[in-house]
Amino acid sequence: MNRSNQLFGLERQIGHDFANKALLTQALTHRSFNGANNERLEFLGDGVLNFIIASQLYAKFPKLDEGDLSRLRAHLVKEPTLSEVATALNIGEVLRLGEGELKSAGWRRPSVLADALEAIIGAVFLDAGFDAAQAVVIGLFTPLIEKIDPKAIGKDPKSMLQEYLQSKKIDVPVYEVLAIEGEAHCQVFRVECRVPKFNMTTQGEGSSRRAAEQEAAKLAYAQITA
Amino acid sequence: MNRSNQLFGLERQIGHDFANKALLTQALTHRSFNGANNERLEFLGDGVLNFIIASQLYAKFPKLDEGDLSRLRAHLVKEPTLSEVATALNIGEVLRLGEGELKSAGWRRPSVLADALEAIIGAVFLDAGFDAAQAVVIGLFTPLIEKIDPKAIGKDPKSMLQEYLQSKKIDVPVYEVLAIEGEAHCQVFRVECRVPKFNMTTQGEGSSRRAAEQEAAKLAYAQITA
Repeated sequence: MNRSNQLFGLERQIGHDFANKALLTQALTHRSFNGANNERLEFLGDGVLNFIIASQLYAKFPKLDEGDLSRLRAHLVKEPTLSEVATALNIGEVLRLGEGELKSAGWRRPSVLADALEAIIGAVFLDAGFDAAQAVVIGLFTPLIEKIDPKAIGKDPKSMLQEYLQSKKIDVPVYEVLAIEGEAHCQVFRVECRVPKFNMTTQGEGSSRRAAEQEAAKLAYAQITA
Repeated sequence: MNRSNQLFGLERQIGHDFANKALLTQALTHRSFNGANNERLEFLGDGVLNFIIASQLYAKFPKLDEGDLSRLRAHLVKEPTLSEVATALNIGEVLRLGEGELKSAGWRRPSVLADALEAIIGAVFLDAGFDAAQAVVIGLFTPLIEKIDPKAIGKDPKSMLQEYLQSKKIDVPVYEVLAIEGEAHCQVFRVECRVPKFNMTTQGEGSSRRAAEQEAAKLAYAQITA
């Protein structure tokens, strides 16, 4: 497939036909390549993406407070999430990189891919305005927003387990240290988590009691909510 | 002036007539007050404000890189700047605060004022969309953006002075320690900054040589660019 077909395919996937194709080309140009690169567009795109995600979350979760909304947004716009979206769009194949970056496989680097995705969103905004950028972001991120679980983002497994059980009026779990092994400076704790109602026990290990409890709670939560 | 006149005045000042007046009231409601407060609106407003400022700076400074653009944006949306804008709008007079906050003069607190301003911008977005929010932000912030000096934000005085002189092909300044006074644990350095071309000297004092040099450079830069 030649480059212009690839760019056409990308435009179809994001659902935006650029009036100014040079903007798309610039969004796909890494700073290691000669000429106008995508760093300023990334700055713009980061801003509009963050806001559009904020606005979608605000509407979808009317009961969440601003702390939870911030956490959800951070989860959606973090580099690993963005680079996954970019990978699904095959952005790596149309990136323009300098020689050094080509040799070190820069087109596969998550930060490079995430930056290019933000730059594309910034380019759409410049090309056609806020509503166009919003349509592209909604198209790309709605599947992620749909499956997000506000309770599961950013909370530790013990809290999640406890809140889940409380919401079902079930007694909270009991944690018990089963063993402490190893020398003083590298101890390993083994902890059991027991949920009496389900007659369920899980075990976790860790370098502290708390870490071991979190491991055990994670297994229990996964089994209960499976 | 009664409250509805005050709100009408605020709407005139920001240039937006709310279709849904309840949004404006919510934006002006601190969390210490009973009922729907402005924290979620502040989350939304922070996002749209940051993006609109980013977009204005992007257009106004086509040669700045993304690092400088970020610095300028941070300067414009930081709490002291926002609370100044809020103060000019007399937002403190129409804020709804709980009793404790009223007693401790919460309506004068910069963080409370800055948050309310962001919430108002978020409320405008919900009330009438992006273009309306953009119009309000441009109205409030253009005077600040107009007078911003990209070279002066976030750089230390020595760097600013040196870059200014180099841009004019003038020899860089010479710094000299004139005196070190005081006990070892509380020394005071006195430093001279000399710009040979202008036959100009300034002096600065500080608890370190570097701090004293910065003071002297600040005076020199102010005199040269006055």
